[in-house]
Amino acid sequence: MKQNKYDDPAFFAAYGQMSRSAVGLDAAGEWPALRALLPELRGKRVLDLGCGYGWHCRYAREQQALSALGVDISESMLAKAREMTDDPAISYRRQAIEDIELDEGAYDAALSSLALHYVERFDAVCRQVYRGLAPGGSFVLSVEHPIFTSRDEQDWHYGPQGERLHWPVDGYQDESVRRTRFLGHEVVKYHRTASTYVNTLLDAGFRIDRLSEPQPTPEMLASVPEMKDETRRPIFLLIAASKSASNQ
Amino acid sequence: MKQNKYDDPAFFAAYGQMSRSAVGLDAAGEWPALRALLPELRGKRVLDLGCGYGWHCRYAREQQALSALGVDISESMLAKAREMTDDPAISYRRQAIEDIELDEGAYDAALSSLALHYVERFDAVCRQVYRGLAPGGSFVLSVEHPIFTSRDEQDWHYGPQGERLHWPVDGYQDESVRRTRFLGHEVVKYHRTASTYVNTLLDAGFRIDRLSEPQPTPEMLASVPEMKDETRRPIFLLIAASKSASNQ
Repeated sequence: MKQNKYDDPAFFAAYGQMSRSAVGLDAAGEWPALRALLPELRGKRVLDLGCGYGWHCRYAREQQALSALGVDISESMLAKAREMTDDPAISYRRQAIEDIELDEGAYDAALSSLALHYVERFDAVCRQVYRGLAPGGSFVLSVEHPIFTSRDEQDWHYGPQGERLHWPVDGYQDESVRRTRFLGHEVVKYHRTASTYVNTLLDAGFRIDRLSEPQPTPEMLASVPEMKDETRRPIFLLIAASKSASNQ
Repeated sequence: MKQNKYDDPAFFAAYGQMSRSAVGLDAAGEWPALRALLPELRGKRVLDLGCGYGWHCRYAREQQALSALGVDISESMLAKAREMTDDPAISYRRQAIEDIELDEGAYDAALSSLALHYVERFDAVCRQVYRGLAPGGSFVLSVEHPIFTSRDEQDWHYGPQGERLHWPVDGYQDESVRRTRFLGHEVVKYHRTASTYVNTLLDAGFRIDRLSEPQPTPEMLASVPEMKDETRRPIFLLIAASKSASNQ
């Protein structure tokens, strides 16, 4: 079994308290940037890797996607997603992202939101997604930024009064496990460099269409004062990639 | 006149002391990574933006490039380059990189080594290089990494014994001037995010072929002990991009 913190009841309960879980996509600071990278979804077969509560699958259907499949390792997540879903064109499958095997060309768009930094074999996932996409298909993903994941601590460097002095980077080239705290529990992440994320997609056959290191909108900065530090270092890296429309 | 520190005699003298100036490409830690990104140069018309002493132009000719043009803002640099060059297929032109105007399709490969973070309008340079490349042409560039340029200080965070604790990142999203010290002089750099470097190339029409955040080779680590800290944060970002071989 791959890492599955979400079936730990205490962790799952804590996750449910996060506004991005309870309120949905509009409570996720990076959602406007991720949405901007998504292709037109109308009539598309959409795959979501690490679907959680299923918010992105439901968004895809709001955009008139033909169908949406959410994949997640957590039975608790999928139970919640099924409970919140009333749409026969959305289905959920319990599986570790690392274990997906996709029929060739079965999807028109794939997305993965903040899941792939928990996955050891990003290369294998990219190859499977490339295979699973029809020609012209899109793969849009977000991960925690390599600047954010470089150290186990994944925290600011503080001054004597507890002020945030700067964001420390160390061990950037050491692409391996980071053991860090999330929602009061230890989780295992895989730190990869920015070039590894991009080159692994290229090696799988993808074209790179866009990178994004989103920052809070002026509205967010005005309404959530703590967000001001989010301009000081990037927390997420978003990548839009695509499979050539012609046969290669 | 755009920034031209190299015609300040003291700065130029200090630059001449750097081993990458005096010894050439093999003394530049990132050269193996940059060379690996370059296309086959045989028979190509090569452009080097920020050519300095002309080492890359001479390398291109060693690789049997048809011709090489080096562009640099510094008269001192170009005088040195001309003094060191005995090859009628290499020419040098004094011009700020920002001011280049290239004939359409006049070059097969363009490169720029550690110059473009001194240039304010990366977008304009990308558009000119795209125009100046023939279909299928390559653009390979290196810049100081956004992790390196985010703060004016561009230095480690030190502990009480002067030990390097970590590399501080701050102001990452603030894409603007950084005033920093290089060779004992103040120089002006332009901090840009990694996504801006990539997206600006995409917006100019380029395809992204490779990113690289090079680290010292095991041989370098063994022979130059101070290099060990170079694995802790990336200092350079290298990008290989190309213009489609078919008409778009």
